[in-house]
Amino acid sequence: MADSRFFKSSGHLSLRGIAALTGAAVAAAVEDRRVNDVAPLERAGKDDLSFFDNVKYLDAFTASGAGACFVRKKYAPRAPKGMALLITENPYLAYALTAQKFYPEPPGEGISPKAVIEKSARLGKDVSIGAGTVIGGGVVIGDGCRIGPLCSITHTLMGKRAVIHPGVHIGQDGFGFAPGPEGILKVPQLGRVIIGDDVEIGAGTCIDRGAGPDTIIGDGCKIDNLVQIGHNVRLGKYVIITGQCGIAGSTQIGDGAMLGAQSGLAGHLSIGAGAKLAGRSGVMRDVPAGETYGGAPAIPIKEWRRQMAAMLKLGKK
Amino acid sequence: MADSRFFKSSGHLSLRGIAALTGAAVAAAVEDRRVNDVAPLERAGKDDLSFFDNVKYLDAFTASGAGACFVRKKYAPRAPKGMALLITENPYLAYALTAQKFYPEPPGEGISPKAVIEKSARLGKDVSIGAGTVIGGGVVIGDGCRIGPLCSITHTLMGKRAVIHPGVHIGQDGFGFAPGPEGILKVPQLGRVIIGDDVEIGAGTCIDRGAGPDTIIGDGCKIDNLVQIGHNVRLGKYVIITGQCGIAGSTQIGDGAMLGAQSGLAGHLSIGAGAKLAGRSGVMRDVPAGETYGGAPAIPIKEWRRQMAAMLKLGKK
Amino acid sequence: MADSRFFKSSGHLSLRGIAALTGAAVAAAVEDRRVNDVAPLERAGKDDLSFFDNVKYLDAFTASGAGACFVRKKYAPRAPKGMALLITENPYLAYALTAQKFYPEPPGEGISPKAVIEKSARLGKDVSIGAGTVIGGGVVIGDGCRIGPLCSITHTLMGKRAVIHPGVHIGQDGFGFAPGPEGILKVPQLGRVIIGDDVEIGAGTCIDRGAGPDTIIGDGCKIDNLVQIGHNVRLGKYVIITGQCGIAGSTQIGDGAMLGAQSGLAGHLSIGAGAKLAGRSGVMRDVPAGETYGGAPAIPIKEWRRQMAAMLKLGKK
Repeated sequence: MADSRFFKSSGHLSLRGIAALTGAAVAAAVEDRRVNDVAPLERAGKDDLSFFDNVKYLDAFTASGAGACFVRKKYAPRAPKGMALLITENPYLAYALTAQKFYPEPPGEGISPKAVIEKSARLGKDVSIGAGTVIGGGVVIGDGCRIGPLCSITHTLMGKRAVIHPGVHIGQDGFGFAPGPEGILKVPQLGRVIIGDDVEIGAGTCIDRGAGPDTIIGDGCKIDNLVQIGHNVRLGKYVIITGQCGIAGSTQIGDGAMLGAQSGLAGHLSIGAGAKLAGRSGVMRDVPAGETYGGAPAIPIKEWRRQMAAMLKLGKK
Repeated sequence: MADSRFFKSSGHLSLRGIAALTGAAVAAAVEDRRVNDVAPLERAGKDDLSFFDNVKYLDAFTASGAGACFVRKKYAPRAPKGMALLITENPYLAYALTAQKFYPEPPGEGISPKAVIEKSARLGKDVSIGAGTVIGGGVVIGDGCRIGPLCSITHTLMGKRAVIHPGVHIGQDGFGFAPGPEGILKVPQLGRVIIGDDVEIGAGTCIDRGAGPDTIIGDGCKIDNLVQIGHNVRLGKYVIITGQCGIAGSTQIGDGAMLGAQSGLAGHLSIGAGAKLAGRSGVMRDVPAGETYGGAPAIPIKEWRRQMAAMLKLGKK
Repeated sequence: MADSRFFKSSGHLSLRGIAALTGAAVAAAVEDRRVNDVAPLERAGKDDLSFFDNVKYLDAFTASGAGACFVRKKYAPRAPKGMALLITENPYLAYALTAQKFYPEPPGEGISPKAVIEKSARLGKDVSIGAGTVIGGGVVIGDGCRIGPLCSITHTLMGKRAVIHPGVHIGQDGFGFAPGPEGILKVPQLGRVIIGDDVEIGAGTCIDRGAGPDTIIGDGCKIDNLVQIGHNVRLGKYVIITGQCGIAGSTQIGDGAMLGAQSGLAGHLSIGAGAKLAGRSGVMRDVPAGETYGGAPAIPIKEWRRQMAAMLKLGKK
């Protein structure tokens, strides 16, 4: 059971209802059973629903005391006796839908009296802003945005339903310097940050505003913690960027691309739609749409695998 | 035109005036023309001044509607018809100078009533400090410093005209632990952070104070976002450090060195004046003055290029 | 002498007392001498105690004006004339003990009136909380914790005597998304962060709460700046994690393991007790207990050294 100091459950559900919600198949003999909560395989008891998605946890699955479990068809025979099975080819998605049902997002907490909001900022309906957060003049925040504590947001136009975690900094000057005979000259940063709808941005992430063009974060992008996004970067829709990635100025990333953690992308590159980067990729050239790259400098995944195998050999003897 | 919600233009300029300001050459036939604003190549119209500096954007240059443009002499013949040319060998620097003229730095906003400043801190003239920022006892901040919101600054002596972006943490304990028979002992961190004049520090960057010696950031250093600088690090003057670099304790970096993004430097190293590191360098040994290194472990750039070429081959067949 | 604006010394000590405190050996002829302070080799004068631990600084040792110095027996003959020697095989630890004696941790500053603490949070005795820090509902903070300014802490149960540096974010949602036919679904994050006793967490570090299981930081863990710890990560006791490391979701790290700076660990891995990772390791597989690994992908240190030697050759000719 999730800790009630932090989470409020909305009650119990029948397996029939869960099957209807998720599209999972459940045997008629058990569809009247009820579960009171979701829980991980190791901690779930007979009134809990769990999920088995990653084969690494097969042992936890076969030993689990969960009363019910989402599982792929091929693993159903490995289930412990007495466990009610909800058969689905996407157990994680089915779990997510059910967990949302048990634990609906609590209503926003509104605007903290400890937030600092310039008068000329425009906030939509149902916006939450956490304590200590600073919203600059002229900023626009769309309906339903939830902004955590201790963020700073300037020079930004933000769409609807963004989720901004604590300590995010958006809209500050990009790193624009022109070396000249009299030292290093600061280049005025005259663009904005344009954020689409349904974007999520992780704790400690920094997004610089454009230098002249705008920095653009497309609809549905999900950005993890401690990511650095330079000026003029353009993300398409539904781009996924995991922890500690860095994207240098003016690089463009197409719809649905996925960046593995700690990857670094040089400036002025184009990453095609649907491209994937393995974790810790060091990208120095364009990546074509739909391709998977890895390594530093990043190369097609097949070449990278061969390269790694060859390098492992170099260390062996 | 820069978004007037965020930026105030100071009016129009003649090409003659811009040529005088930047040293660019302009044909007599067009020197009376005026421009109202600066804009990137793709968005500039007939009353805008743009710049063409990176050959990657040659197509944008040849198709640009900009009324005037800074350009190197060799690319002048590629300009679209009707564009007035400002010929210079450093278009980016010329643009920076002109953009500063159109958009002079607005005056500082003074000390936010929401900043938290210990009584024994000493602030110079014309200092700005953003909301939520915490300045510790004994800290000295020089004239003209602009410190963003949500920063913490302790144990620090800061020179003049520093620009500190949001969420910067300066002067906290370095990572000093001595493993002993009774566990891990914390080593008191008894030094300070000494920051010279005209330093700029990016959002989310952390600079630990010295352990006994001081941590030193020389005049004119420019540090990007999410950089980690360990205790006792000494940066000379005009060192440029791009995003997400990390410098371990007691490493010294000479004047004018440049560190590519996401580079990591081991502790107790010496990086010579004017040395350059490619992005994602992993530096385990000293780097001589004036040399360019890359790779991990970092090696001279020529060797690194050969190494990369050989590694690419390893992946090919 | 440490800057009195920032540090208060508690007075002088005799070498006899210091020897008793640290277990170092001192010649009878000098054991009545006193020192007034600790100082680094280059800055120490005749009334200061220093330490010589890293052979890189042998020149500084032989030229030091320190009145007394901790040194290993083998280097004693290299000491400058007149320096009183405190012979110990762990000079850094001896220095740490003595520096703590000179500069005892000042008492905590209590709860800042500028902190924002939910009513349902429970704070132990002698807790300090800095300005701007936000403590969420239900959070438990143990006795003697010192939490710096501008931190956010939610969904967390924290043990005793933690030291949390400025700008740390603990307990926010992990990066949990399930891609589905109707877009990217957010997975409710229903776990907590459980922090043991005597933990230290560096500036700007982010620790996400568990997705269902908890995220666990064991007793005595020391975590440096700008580290990213994903949901469900479990650290054993006395794990040391240096700057800018990233640990992806559900990875487990055994007691006493040490992670070099900027290392990245993929998710769902197991790193054994006492394992060590070189800086910038990219860990894609489990690491056995007690082993030292390096490289990306990380391999046993001996193989990595051979690999590096072979790679250096690739660049040479």
